[in-house]
Amino acid sequence: MNARLLTQGGFIEKQAAGIYNFLPLGLRVLGKVNNIIRDEMNKVEGQEIFMPVLHSREIWKATGRDQSMDGVLYRTRGTDDQEFVLGPSHEEVVTPLVKTFIKSYKDLPLAVYQIQTKFRNEPRAKSGVLRGREFGMKDMYSFHLTEEDLDAYYDRCKIAYTNVYERCGLKSYMIEASGGAFSDKFSHEFSILTPAGEDTILICDKCGAAQNIEIAQGKYAEPEDFGEDGKANAKEKPLPMKEVEAKRGPSIEAGCELHGCPAWKILKTVVYEVEDDGLVGICIRGDLQINELKVEKYFKKQIRPASPEMLKKAGLVQGFIGPVNMPAKVKISFIGDHSIKNVTNIITGANAKDVDIINVNIGTDYTVEDFADFVQVRGSFKCGKCGGALREEKAIEAGNIFKLGTKFTDAVSFTVTNKDQKQVPVFMGCYGIGNTRLVGTIVEACHDENGIIWPKSVAPYHVHLITLGNDEEATKKADKLYEELTEAGIEVLYDDRTDSAGVKFKDSDLIGLPLRIVISKRTLERDSVEWKERAPSTDGKPSEAKNVAFKDVVKEVVKFVKD
Amino acid sequence: MNARLLTQGGFIEKQAAGIYNFLPLGLRVLGKVNNIIRDEMNKVEGQEIFMPVLHSREIWKATGRDQSMDGVLYRTRGTDDQEFVLGPSHEEVVTPLVKTFIKSYKDLPLAVYQIQTKFRNEPRAKSGVLRGREFGMKDMYSFHLTEEDLDAYYDRCKIAYTNVYERCGLKSYMIEASGGAFSDKFSHEFSILTPAGEDTILICDKCGAAQNIEIAQGKYAEPEDFGEDGKANAKEKPLPMKEVEAKRGPSIEAGCELHGCPAWKILKTVVYEVEDDGLVGICIRGDLQINELKVEKYFKKQIRPASPEMLKKAGLVQGFIGPVNMPAKVKISFIGDHSIKNVTNIITGANAKDVDIINVNIGTDYTVEDFADFVQVRGSFKCGKCGGALREEKAIEAGNIFKLGTKFTDAVSFTVTNKDQKQVPVFMGCYGIGNTRLVGTIVEACHDENGIIWPKSVAPYHVHLITLGNDEEATKKADKLYEELTEAGIEVLYDDRTDSAGVKFKDSDLIGLPLRIVISKRTLERDSVEWKERAPSTDGKPSEAKNVAFKDVVKEVVKFVKD
Repeated sequence: MNARLLTQGGFIEKQAAGIYNFLPLGLRVLGKVNNIIRDEMNKVEGQEIFMPVLHSREIWKATGRDQSMDGVLYRTRGTDDQEFVLGPSHEEVVTPLVKTFIKSYKDLPLAVYQIQTKFRNEPRAKSGVLRGREFGMKDMYSFHLTEEDLDAYYDRCKIAYTNVYERCGLKSYMIEASGGAFSDKFSHEFSILTPAGEDTILICDKCGAAQNIEIAQGKYAEPEDFGEDGKANAKEKPLPMKEVEAKRGPSIEAGCELHGCPAWKILKTVVYEVEDDGLVGICIRGDLQINELKVEKYFKKQIRPASPEMLKKAGLVQGFIGPVNMPAKVKISFIGDHSIKNVTNIITGANAKDVDIINVNIGTDYTVEDFADFVQVRGSFKCGKCGGALREEKAIEAGNIFKLGTKFTDAVSFTVTNKDQKQVPVFMGCYGIGNTRLVGTIVEACHDENGIIWPKSVAPYHVHLITLGNDEEATKKADKLYEELTEAGIEVLYDDRTDSAGVKFKDSDLIGLPLRIVISKRTLERDSVEWKERAPSTDGKPSEAKNVAFKDVVKEVVKFVKD
Repeated sequence: MNARLLTQGGFIEKQAAGIYNFLPLGLRVLGKVNNIIRDEMNKVEGQEIFMPVLHSREIWKATGRDQSMDGVLYRTRGTDDQEFVLGPSHEEVVTPLVKTFIKSYKDLPLAVYQIQTKFRNEPRAKSGVLRGREFGMKDMYSFHLTEEDLDAYYDRCKIAYTNVYERCGLKSYMIEASGGAFSDKFSHEFSILTPAGEDTILICDKCGAAQNIEIAQGKYAEPEDFGEDGKANAKEKPLPMKEVEAKRGPSIEAGCELHGCPAWKILKTVVYEVEDDGLVGICIRGDLQINELKVEKYFKKQIRPASPEMLKKAGLVQGFIGPVNMPAKVKISFIGDHSIKNVTNIITGANAKDVDIINVNIGTDYTVEDFADFVQVRGSFKCGKCGGALREEKAIEAGNIFKLGTKFTDAVSFTVTNKDQKQVPVFMGCYGIGNTRLVGTIVEACHDENGIIWPKSVAPYHVHLITLGNDEEATKKADKLYEELTEAGIEVLYDDRTDSAGVKFKDSDLIGLPLRIVISKRTLERDSVEWKERAPSTDGKPSEAKNVAFKDVVKEVVKFVKD
């Protein structure tokens, strides 16, 4: 959507996949976004610098990212076969640069940032300026004597980031980042809600917490929450387990139908192949899904669901796998999700075709090697922190911050002398906002079927001044108003083309400036202009046009813009 | 010099040869330079845009520059083997981009510009930020319905460019560009005088004209200007020519000594090998030098001086070559410089070892196929336009403008409909200023042995506020003054380090802010500050420090900065 509206409105023009020209209107928006970002970075003592695009490949080899980021790096070669990486990020440059100047604990902390073009060879560039191959970014890097000082600064940056989005007219949610199999809690993402988002996040409106669904934690319903049946189960006594014939399909639904029970009374066992470790069965309550990212994090290894062939070869019967009555020859270990602890007399497959076991109870009838949280949290869960209702929303990641620790400073032996004249490591944080991506995000979050609705703070101009009907008097009045508004510091886009009202209004809605002012013979008869705000009124309906007396226009516009 | 001062002063830091980081101070200077450039481009209706670094190689092939600029292009390759050129210039991108939007004569003229990083694989990057591999540039492109409109706009841009340099504190000279063998008069360079310049230019202080020495025209002295001897020659009657023995070396000096005459009375003939055309002898007055670029332009072909072997092979005797008595078997044509017309009874070699011919007169004794201007103009010449005195100066090229005509618009079939609904070609101009190079140029032009002397308009800060002696009262007063100056819109760099006065003053001179204000116990005794301007006073001597009463400081600083 951002690509279509920004292109049709004349903000950007595609050069190649993931590579865009910023046209005058688009560059004005980008400039305003940049200035908001600058201002917030300056407030946290960031000093602006400007680092090069061309990085010697040597320094990328030194940190190992020449290899680990191989797929997305653009490279080039200069005179004397010198090799360069086109910077997708600047840790490799900023760390030795800062090392040149910072020798003592007295020089710390220090934060530097730049607004610079980045290059990433994204296999599939898409979504307009949301995911480009050449894109703008503000990247800040901070350097600290201690981890505690990094922590404190990191917390200040969280606020600075939230301020940036708010000043761009966006509501942001800060979430702990997923970051794949080996992520830890040293990184946060800032998400903006929009149906165009690639991410799904879970928001608790009660405590304000937001999580990426990929790693979210939350409270699922316990048996006693499932009505009469559930309450009864919570009080039930364990019964002796018993094999029963079970001519059914392999799904949980088939089990429910056969046994006439809800899904939560069935034990689901999913078998994974863990890299180097063989087969593992994850046991979870039948109504819940497994979050495989959590399984990877648990094992700290790559996993994949075991294939039917592999199950067969291992002596397992698909659809009837369970931790009870496991044939001795099968090599498999079981790990339980916490959810299986509180169901009494659960039903499981018997590791034999068309046989289930009912009244199975953990501890008595089977054990697992460990318990962990493997649950895929959904919007139907409650907040893990406060118990509030969660809601699932689509979101765009519009920035992220990382505690890098000493990863990059170690790579270039960047240490400082401390108070005791000893060399100590330097702790580092980095803080990124894609500024061109942010422009796209604003459009995704702020538009209607007719076009963009720019927040005042980032609109390319405040006012769209339009004349209609090629009336000489109207043009004269509009010329004068243009002068007066400009004089008053108002940014005016003046459409004095001879096109029809229909064409001009359509363009105006598309471009989406906060305020449209029309001057025509008709408005002049009332000695006024037509005033229409682009943003919907408080009740969500389109704002209505109204007349404002000529003599009041400048004053009213100044008031509107400052509001 | 710029590299040393900018690096020592903490403005830039080298990343690799020709690739620099801009540090906080340097980026502030660059920002001010950019804003001056922007303002002047906006005044000639330039609209700012931002085009990408990555250009599809296809569009570079279409204009032929993929090949013609091969040596300086950085290239990279993306997914699907898509090839890119890292833009060294943006004609290939801007022309199709503008073509997308401009369809009718009504849409013209149009000028767009950007401030963007450029990439050129310079074989020998040198001179700090004067000649980089990755460097900043403002490039503007204008589009016109007619050549006349381009001409008029081009003239406006000359003024805009002159304004840019003047506002950066520099005196610029506009010169017709050389541009190698096939240049024409469709391009101008803007030069700034400094001993560090790579170019030599000739300035006429009388009429203001400036020329690059490589293609300069000017008036050399005629015989009657050479005292009694010269006046006599101008009135002399032609005498019969006569061979004389001439046991001498091959130089003009040797001829002067032998014949006891000034150099202008000797005919100098230099033989060149013209690509595909064989040998050509250029005849010129003995006291003048040949400008080989003019010879190339005359023939519109590559030339090189004939080697001794080649001369011998052709039957010519080095040091005794001349247009008279040429052996019939020798294939050579002679072209005369205009300077040989007005010398009577000139002396030339006789095309035989140790033989000269005296009393040679053109028309009577020999002819040339054509006359042209081949003279290498020097500072000793007079201005070709007004006859004023020329002076030779070293200069840096700090910008250039070109009339491109339809070269690039033809390459992408960019035409518009004219008033008669016919498709007509679009005329194009381009206008470049290297903004990072301009920062280096300012330093080359504005420094002394102690450091940089920033013009007020581009200084990173206006005031260097310095406390001395770690005096508590001084620090308190300085803190307050910092607040007050900042409040008044003055940009202050505040040095409250505990270092000695020597260290702090040395740094202050090096960084080169326009005004230094010192507060110490000693100045406080007089209830004043020490005020010292970095620029020399009007007599060229270093400005002297003076005391300014505390109560007047803010007012005086505001006055100083606005001046």
